[in-house]
Amino acid sequence: MEQQKNQDWRAKLHEIIYESNTYAGKAFDVALLIAIFTSILVVMLDSIQSYHQKYGDIFSIMEWTFTGLFTIEYTLRLIIIKHPINYIKSPLGIVDLLALIPSYLSVIFVGAQSLLALRALRLLRVFRIFKLGHYLSEMKFLTVALRGSMRKISIFMLTVLALVIVLGSMMYLIENRENGFTNIPESIYWAIVTITTVGYGDISPVTPLGKFVASLIMLIGYAIIAVPTGIITTEMAVAARKKGFHHEVCPGCGREGHDDDAKFCKYCATKL
Amino acid sequence: MEQQKNQDWRAKLHEIIYESNTYAGKAFDVALLIAIFTSILVVMLDSIQSYHQKYGDIFSIMEWTFTGLFTIEYTLRLIIIKHPINYIKSPLGIVDLLALIPSYLSVIFVGAQSLLALRALRLLRVFRIFKLGHYLSEMKFLTVALRGSMRKISIFMLTVLALVIVLGSMMYLIENRENGFTNIPESIYWAIVTITTVGYGDISPVTPLGKFVASLIMLIGYAIIAVPTGIITTEMAVAARKKGFHHEVCPGCGREGHDDDAKFCKYCATKL
Amino acid sequence: MEQQKNQDWRAKLHEIIYESNTYAGKAFDVALLIAIFTSILVVMLDSIQSYHQKYGDIFSIMEWTFTGLFTIEYTLRLIIIKHPINYIKSPLGIVDLLALIPSYLSVIFVGAQSLLALRALRLLRVFRIFKLGHYLSEMKFLTVALRGSMRKISIFMLTVLALVIVLGSMMYLIENRENGFTNIPESIYWAIVTITTVGYGDISPVTPLGKFVASLIMLIGYAIIAVPTGIITTEMAVAARKKGFHHEVCPGCGREGHDDDAKFCKYCATKL
Amino acid sequence: MEQQKNQDWRAKLHEIIYESNTYAGKAFDVALLIAIFTSILVVMLDSIQSYHQKYGDIFSIMEWTFTGLFTIEYTLRLIIIKHPINYIKSPLGIVDLLALIPSYLSVIFVGAQSLLALRALRLLRVFRIFKLGHYLSEMKFLTVALRGSMRKISIFMLTVLALVIVLGSMMYLIENRENGFTNIPESIYWAIVTITTVGYGDISPVTPLGKFVASLIMLIGYAIIAVPTGIITTEMAVAARKKGFHHEVCPGCGREGHDDDAKFCKYCATKL
Repeated sequence: MEQQKNQDWRAKLHEIIYESNTYAGKAFDVALLIAIFTSILVVMLDSIQSYHQKYGDIFSIMEWTFTGLFTIEYTLRLIIIKHPINYIKSPLGIVDLLALIPSYLSVIFVGAQSLLALRALRLLRVFRIFKLGHYLSEMKFLTVALRGSMRKISIFMLTVLALVIVLGSMMYLIENRENGFTNIPESIYWAIVTITTVGYGDISPVTPLGKFVASLIMLIGYAIIAVPTGIITTEMAVAARKKGFHHEVCPGCGREGHDDDAKFCKYCATKL
Repeated sequence: MEQQKNQDWRAKLHEIIYESNTYAGKAFDVALLIAIFTSILVVMLDSIQSYHQKYGDIFSIMEWTFTGLFTIEYTLRLIIIKHPINYIKSPLGIVDLLALIPSYLSVIFVGAQSLLALRALRLLRVFRIFKLGHYLSEMKFLTVALRGSMRKISIFMLTVLALVIVLGSMMYLIENRENGFTNIPESIYWAIVTITTVGYGDISPVTPLGKFVASLIMLIGYAIIAVPTGIITTEMAVAARKKGFHHEVCPGCGREGHDDDAKFCKYCATKL
Repeated sequence: MEQQKNQDWRAKLHEIIYESNTYAGKAFDVALLIAIFTSILVVMLDSIQSYHQKYGDIFSIMEWTFTGLFTIEYTLRLIIIKHPINYIKSPLGIVDLLALIPSYLSVIFVGAQSLLALRALRLLRVFRIFKLGHYLSEMKFLTVALRGSMRKISIFMLTVLALVIVLGSMMYLIENRENGFTNIPESIYWAIVTITTVGYGDISPVTPLGKFVASLIMLIGYAIIAVPTGIITTEMAVAARKKGFHHEVCPGCGREGHDDDAKFCKYCATKL
Repeated sequence: MEQQKNQDWRAKLHEIIYESNTYAGKAFDVALLIAIFTSILVVMLDSIQSYHQKYGDIFSIMEWTFTGLFTIEYTLRLIIIKHPINYIKSPLGIVDLLALIPSYLSVIFVGAQSLLALRALRLLRVFRIFKLGHYLSEMKFLTVALRGSMRKISIFMLTVLALVIVLGSMMYLIENRENGFTNIPESIYWAIVTITTVGYGDISPVTPLGKFVASLIMLIGYAIIAVPTGIITTEMAVAARKKGFHHEVCPGCGREGHDDDAKFCKYCATKL
């Protein structure tokens, strides 16, 4: 009976911590999000010199309190779940651990505390609460579309990389060291700043030829920026079209994915 | 009979102020727009030091005249309409009120006058005049598409927010306080400036490692900027398709998908 | 017979100057483009101080030679065509005249010569040569798509305009005059620089609150920049789909625009 | 027999160097990529003053070793292939040669070494390894879409070019020489920086009228940036549809448009 009780207690806690379809589970998730948000705010404020000097001690105490709470939470998650190794290896598990380490690291290394901003990643937990609502299908939609465009985007990125290396080196030759293009890596940095249309202006061409080549790079970047947009939009359109398909299930073979105007199952020819 | 007259007078005024399909109604709307535009212009010019010193008094008089006129207009709107509370709570009503408050507030607080720029929101009234023309369907189209993409955009924005917090904090660690990254909020501001490709250049990385990480952020931003575009374009394409899709069913073969101008079923030639 | 000869001569010249499907016509168009291009180059080089001092006289002579040639060309165009008024009122005619005026104006006003850059608009004549090739349909495609999205884009632009006025005024209140936001028009200029992601950095927020609000504006701009892209892409997709339609002509009523899967004319039910 | 052996040796080498579906071929490609990458890294580091002073000699030796290796590779490629002229004229062949020349050129011209960054183009060889995987079809997709939009993009680019010449010259007239708009080419450079939303801020309008016109240019650029995106997205959508569209015609009813995985006609249930 002792064991039974223990079992119940575990099941209950699992429901609260891991799920969010009960009232207690949802309350836990919301409380956790508030704790994460507050702890990030403390790290941010602590990084501001004037606040650090005034409230440094209070920030430190709050910091360690949150670290303590998150450590307890992490331990509980490990104890309650059946296969802790799966949780540890999951993206959420890694993020949860990353949010803890900096605090303990800061005992040894000064400044490691700033890594606490990694906690911001835990904010993505907010999507867990959305899961129950209509946000789930939207998230799936975005994930499917982005995964589908991964390969094309990576081909595109590689081409851009080769391009900025060549263009950056060219500018290093055209503009002299005195004009801010002090070495090739610096010039490549400039090329990236330019082709992505960020344009800080910390380095900018000075010679007429440099300005001419820079203009060409900008116009190239103008056309190039359209490529990832095209890729992702097309993939989303495909995902959107597929989403519209899944309504009817074939009575013969149980498969989905028929077009709207289909009269017969395309797999087994049963009348829909 | 007195009451009848009063009734007529109210109906007439309602037509002029709230509707714009009569000549008087349209004239009122145009006059109102000119008044709004002029009053904004006065606020703008008054904010320029040299003009303020020369024409400050005239601007002040014009300002109060417009405020007076708009107050009368607002009062009339309240009196004439049947359910004033509905008007007050409507977006247009809120904007109309916001356009009045700053003037009265400026009596107590110096500088509150600048809030008068909120009147610019009243310029959106221009769409009311368009309502009668072909602009109505275009506006509906845009509104439908944007509302449909709201959820996806908000998921996207949340992810970007978590990203800039993490990336900003990283840069705070990499670049020293001396390089402009004075604290984490400042660094997050920099990350937003960079990832949105605005790139002021008021803060920019100085160390080689900082420039390397910044380059990565820019390339990420390059791909990321494609996501909201993809979302909105897909939603618009869906809205465009729906608009074009006539919901008429052929009485002969029961099929849909006929064009708006179709007179006969394109599949079986039955008259629609 | 004298008159006949005159007629022939006019027809011949019309072919050379206005058309480009004969060898002489194409040669004339190419020569004209080279002349336009060279004259623009001269204006550009003349604007560079050091070149002006050295070659100013030569540039001046070239300038007047080109102006003379273009004046002769313009006069010929007027003489040869049947309805000169139609040419004068056409976009090409206006551009041709605009390219002449600055030279003559410069006799009276110093500096008017720089307006000669308006000649760049004449470069668009290059499309006339493309007309014969496959470029014609592509140009039609782009024109149709852009015209179709005009209304939506103008609604969008108006909303952006109201937005930057409100946001700019807000920043004028938040940041003080000392921080570069000297007056409301200046602040609106800053808001436009920011929301379009240009980001010069000549004015940038200094106070923490200002940076926070600026961050919000940038993120809004991030989502907003997707709207015109979505509008134009959707319009182009519609134009592309329509282009695919026009193949089959109904044998009954002669109308086009049938879907690919149509078996009967949707206007008169004739079998296709 | 000697000849036979020679033949075998050539076939073997051809397989290793030109193909990548055998183990040796893949190993060669990977080794080559690592060599290319390292040689680019050496050029980059050598361009940094402080590293050059310390390790200049080592870098020089490595540089010449890589040049030697690449020369051997290039020679082998020429010897092994049947029609060396085809390889020399192919894009890959030109890039391979371009990667060699700078080293030998640097013996005569100081600084030519920096051109070695052209080796970055060889990095595109990475796509050869991808060729075997699923990347091939993605690359074909991108190439088809980009080629299809070439003409429209070039029309667009020409229009933008005419626009920036006119706008740049206008700004040269509005802003004085003292405000950074020193001559027309400089002003055109500024117009390109602005319309592509790069916005360095090295030149920016100072006068109120200049700022007003600049704001207009930015808003125009806002709408214009949507055009190339629209072009490429539409072209990609067309390419995506074509890819998904099975050209199979149903033997029963003659209709097309079946999915790739369809086994039965969705209209009449005939086996495909």
